[in-house]
Amino acid sequence: MFLTSRLSHVFFTFVIGCAGASVPALAAEKPASSLNVVPVVSEVRPSSDRAGVAPTPIALTPAWRVALIGPGSRDARVAAAYTRLLNAWERRTGFAFPREVDGAFSFGENEANQTLVVRCQAAATGESWPRLNDDESYSLKIENERVVVDCPTWRGALHAAVTLQQLLSPSTDGLWTLPQVEIHDRPRFRWRGLLIDTARHFMPVETIKREIDGMALVKLNVLHFHLSDDQGFRVESKVWPLLQAKASEGKFYTQDQLREIVRYAGDRGIRVVPEFDVPGHTSAILTAYPELGSQPGPYHLIDKWGIFSPALDPTNEQVYVFLEKLFREISLLFPDDYFHIGGDELDGKHWSANANIQKFIADRGLKNNEGLHAYFNQRIQKIVTAMGKNMMGWDEILHPDLPPETIVHAWRGPKRLVEAVKAGHGAVISAGYYIDLIQPAREHYGHDPLIDDSALSEKERALVLGGEACMWAEWITPETIDSRLWPRTAAVAERLWSPADVKSVPDLYRRLDILDLRLAEIGLQGERNRYALLRQFAGENATKSQLENLDTLADLTEPVKRYQRGTFQPQFTRHSALVGWVDISRPESLTSWHFANGVETLLNETKGGSVSSQDISALKDLLQKSKLAAEKTLRDIPSLAPRVAELSPTFTDIRDLCDVGLVALEAIEHRQKIAAPSSDAVSRAAKPRLAVEIPLATSIAKLVEAAQAN
Amino acid sequence: MFLTSRLSHVFFTFVIGCAGASVPALAAEKPASSLNVVPVVSEVRPSSDRAGVAPTPIALTPAWRVALIGPGSRDARVAAAYTRLLNAWERRTGFAFPREVDGAFSFGENEANQTLVVRCQAAATGESWPRLNDDESYSLKIENERVVVDCPTWRGALHAAVTLQQLLSPSTDGLWTLPQVEIHDRPRFRWRGLLIDTARHFMPVETIKREIDGMALVKLNVLHFHLSDDQGFRVESKVWPLLQAKASEGKFYTQDQLREIVRYAGDRGIRVVPEFDVPGHTSAILTAYPELGSQPGPYHLIDKWGIFSPALDPTNEQVYVFLEKLFREISLLFPDDYFHIGGDELDGKHWSANANIQKFIADRGLKNNEGLHAYFNQRIQKIVTAMGKNMMGWDEILHPDLPPETIVHAWRGPKRLVEAVKAGHGAVISAGYYIDLIQPAREHYGHDPLIDDSALSEKERALVLGGEACMWAEWITPETIDSRLWPRTAAVAERLWSPADVKSVPDLYRRLDILDLRLAEIGLQGERNRYALLRQFAGENATKSQLENLDTLADLTEPVKRYQRGTFQPQFTRHSALVGWVDISRPESLTSWHFANGVETLLNETKGGSVSSQDISALKDLLQKSKLAAEKTLRDIPSLAPRVAELSPTFTDIRDLCDVGLVALEAIEHRQKIAAPSSDAVSRAAKPRLAVEIPLATSIAKLVEAAQAN
Repeated sequence: MFLTSRLSHVFFTFVIGCAGASVPALAAEKPASSLNVVPVVSEVRPSSDRAGVAPTPIALTPAWRVALIGPGSRDARVAAAYTRLLNAWERRTGFAFPREVDGAFSFGENEANQTLVVRCQAAATGESWPRLNDDESYSLKIENERVVVDCPTWRGALHAAVTLQQLLSPSTDGLWTLPQVEIHDRPRFRWRGLLIDTARHFMPVETIKREIDGMALVKLNVLHFHLSDDQGFRVESKVWPLLQAKASEGKFYTQDQLREIVRYAGDRGIRVVPEFDVPGHTSAILTAYPELGSQPGPYHLIDKWGIFSPALDPTNEQVYVFLEKLFREISLLFPDDYFHIGGDELDGKHWSANANIQKFIADRGLKNNEGLHAYFNQRIQKIVTAMGKNMMGWDEILHPDLPPETIVHAWRGPKRLVEAVKAGHGAVISAGYYIDLIQPAREHYGHDPLIDDSALSEKERALVLGGEACMWAEWITPETIDSRLWPRTAAVAERLWSPADVKSVPDLYRRLDILDLRLAEIGLQGERNRYALLRQFAGENATKSQLENLDTLADLTEPVKRYQRGTFQPQFTRHSALVGWVDISRPESLTSWHFANGVETLLNETKGGSVSSQDISALKDLLQKSKLAAEKTLRDIPSLAPRVAELSPTFTDIRDLCDVGLVALEAIEHRQKIAAPSSDAVSRAAKPRLAVEIPLATSIAKLVEAAQAN
Repeated sequence: MFLTSRLSHVFFTFVIGCAGASVPALAAEKPASSLNVVPVVSEVRPSSDRAGVAPTPIALTPAWRVALIGPGSRDARVAAAYTRLLNAWERRTGFAFPREVDGAFSFGENEANQTLVVRCQAAATGESWPRLNDDESYSLKIENERVVVDCPTWRGALHAAVTLQQLLSPSTDGLWTLPQVEIHDRPRFRWRGLLIDTARHFMPVETIKREIDGMALVKLNVLHFHLSDDQGFRVESKVWPLLQAKASEGKFYTQDQLREIVRYAGDRGIRVVPEFDVPGHTSAILTAYPELGSQPGPYHLIDKWGIFSPALDPTNEQVYVFLEKLFREISLLFPDDYFHIGGDELDGKHWSANANIQKFIADRGLKNNEGLHAYFNQRIQKIVTAMGKNMMGWDEILHPDLPPETIVHAWRGPKRLVEAVKAGHGAVISAGYYIDLIQPAREHYGHDPLIDDSALSEKERALVLGGEACMWAEWITPETIDSRLWPRTAAVAERLWSPADVKSVPDLYRRLDILDLRLAEIGLQGERNRYALLRQFAGENATKSQLENLDTLADLTEPVKRYQRGTFQPQFTRHSALVGWVDISRPESLTSWHFANGVETLLNETKGGSVSSQDISALKDLLQKSKLAAEKTLRDIPSLAPRVAELSPTFTDIRDLCDVGLVALEAIEHRQKIAAPSSDAVSRAAKPRLAVEIPLATSIAKLVEAAQAN
């Protein structure tokens, strides 16, 4: 049963059960984990007006109307959030909710006869920007055919809307229902971010807006906008116009577009923290203004990936004049209190090779390049502070001379976070949350920002503001970013929002699977773009069943992890089309994960002496189906697009791997011992090709091992 | 064999054969119909330097470089067109063509050692706007591992690029190849348009740009931009700002956006003709400025579809002041020579009910409302002429008093076209080309603008400028417009470009099927959005095989035709979500069309006395597969989203229809006579439900009839 491609199906009865009779029991154990919502809410219990009677889910009808009550609800952002909710529900259900003459949804202004009541206490704050310390909590009571939201501020009202959007699920009797529960929800951490790198691959405004929508759905609240790097400078500057003229190849955000993005995010309760990486990662700035460099130049935009040596010259006063004017101009576009100055991966080579710079270090007693970096950061900190902003930088900026009000962004490991807070800095962690490494959601999920909390005092723990998922853009385009980001990033969002003891990986995957549809409902394009890429990959002669076979095979491959892709595609640059099998493969093969779970269960059963034939046959089914898809595709290659032929070794590996697995399963089922398989399929399949790997290989190896040990 | 879901597969060998040894024979009969290109080119023959040796296709390699030669090639639009070509080929093949340091493709400036040479004779015209009488011809010679394009102007260079984009196909030996042919191509008609209605449903800039890309791929050259109607006014006016403030609900193009769209189209050789429909279809204008109406108002934006009575008052001089200022402002945004003033569907009720207007008619001897309409058009014509534009309007404006230089847009039938050109007007035809009627491509394809040409003199025929496909937007959104427009609109494009004797419907469908992938390659979203809608429709518990079953069923249904949808969904307004089964169903079920062809073949065989068991079994296979999908889906309904249950009767119809069909096929195969079927499946399935029909019903009825007559 675990082999259905959509895990949600498996848990269907369970979910419905939760909202119905079995809620109390479940609630006692793991309160929130059974609701269809990511991130898991802080507290949940069945709402019932009569003690002892378990409430049944309530049904949504097309007559539902939202009432916005209380001073906070007059905020246009609240009405917009509930408009988005009703739009999403209309798309899902086909219902048409009541509307005004102008087409806007009809919102009530008092509680009488309204089905969904939003009470927001704080007075409308108008255009005020979301702040780090805003109260984001809300409560939500679903009871007696109506829903009541209570929240101190507009931020909570928005969170309640996306919780509701996710909660609506079909019942087995053909209704759309909400569980009768009472929820009290608030974030564990205040800073829940997503970094999007727009330097390596530029992301158009529409793409950024889509990701903001995705963030809001999982209650992330900071867009960390990485806008400048060795590969490009992405912001229109009026004071330094050569930046966009010479260092963007025409791909940059105009100031109007940045204002639009900032407003779009802010309206959804998402702060935008811009990053301008200095003094390293500055090849783009130096392409435009080489006179600011530590070497004479000329400089050029970098086409590939890695750590490069160009760096601003901290001994040149013009550098500070330049940055002060630039940051001042840019800070007007970003209302947030925080300003990220990067500061990472400075290799120091250009500084070491510059005699004037080394003399400056000696003259000032700065000891070494690190000392000079600290000096630079102190200068920058004054500029940023004078703009009324708090400075933030990657953990390389940590230095005894760093002013304590600077926020440290830990990316090289949790140890850096501990060091930062012990030195009195506020800190945000991204170690463990690098989405571009293509790791499974469960790995990100396993990293807790406070995993070392035993070593931290209460005061130090309070300095841990939260974390940020990072989407570096070396290997993504506007077409593939969605399938690389989602739904995995939601695992990080949950880690940062939900109570620390929410840890069930199977339940996470169950909910991510549903979330993926909720994301598509609001416009995220992961699956639809994958489908289009696959269709194109297959070529103009592919039949529908050939496409289905390829899809079955794509379900079994994953891109290589960490930074391995570059070793497979060393010739790729920023300009290369990312349309290969690796871009079609999902970051995480859920099919393989379900199979691996099935194997674990089976091997445990084997140890216990009783093997379920149902479990075995589910495993066999998957292998047989996969083998068939591989065989058919290998046979069909001459009529498919030439690129498919390059995958022949991979499909052959899959076919042979399935064969070996089927033999091993047969042996385990009949308690026969097998010799070492004559096929080298397992070792072949364990080696990635064309930048993809076959995670099934690990499970098959386990089966073979068990069969040999029978 | 005709039952594979992608017809192209069937013809694969044929196509390759064409480019190889069999070209001469084919070329003699139907020169171009076997190349993978829409529209069919005017002339094609095999290119061979040695007589008697049939050329084999040439292979594309990643080393290919484009050389742009001659004064015309210095036009930036030509380089942009070949950049698009190389981008498309990179996406399809996975190749990386040579690039410059800045990432731009490396273009050569002389012919030596270049693989793709574009010689463009006319001097670069810079920013000059495409004109109706531009020479759009080009020739293309593919020979000896190289491609040479010759063209008098940049227009031809762009057309050659999209021909090449389409021509590249995979060979059976794993290469990407171009046939060795010599092509001479030019359009049959100068005016090849697509109307997009942005009033009923607003289409964002990105959507319009996508459709422009699609138009360029099939050599359409006029975007008729319908910008004002009863449901909204979609242009920012600075002289009459209430138009966008009161009559757009915030959905309008800013003047900057219009300039951007116009430049985008013009760069692709596509003219943009704006339409502002007057004096009827003006509820939006009158919502903003009720004082211009023929009745006191108030007016409001219309939410539904139909013909409405609000009309400007032609006796009010302020109307002309208003329109002159508005048109003058707007004409500055549209560099085209033509300006469309609508003029259709004036019901005259508000004029008849206004005593002053009737007195005006009597005083001026205008006879009736039609006379007043002609008076109005004469006034408007003076305004439009004074702006330096030619006026154009729907065929209702045809009247003895209409100035002859006005272009008549025939939509109520070819007869109107004949009347117009006989009265000396230039004319464009849209009758037969209404894409929103959801008719099969072959029906549009069958309408020739000169079908009545026997009745026309040479001079009158020359007045037929061309035609326009019309996409009225009552039942489309930015999400569904692509799947409704494409690839069907390409059939109209071919009718307007290719020689009149290009008429093979099977060959059209074969090429449309390939074209659909070429459209996806450049960003059109028909299939990917359909997939996303289907996934959402199925709901969060659908497994992959359940989705595949639903997809099989969606392949068998079509939206109802003409304006029937409104009778099924009378409650729908502009604001309704268009996410139903009808929106998922393709406008044309190719599966049903292939089945119908198979039935025709079979019944012809039956008459001849020899039935091919292969043909019968292909028909049976489809019915069995469809029946199975219907049975499984009906069984799975409790676990699917509630909306799926509404389709139960349709799926039951399909299941029963397949049963009846299988019995009939069995009888035909074994030459047994059957009684009238006891099932009423055929008559049930012939009746549309939920705005969809099952075209298979017609074919099954024929089978039953034949089996009864055995």
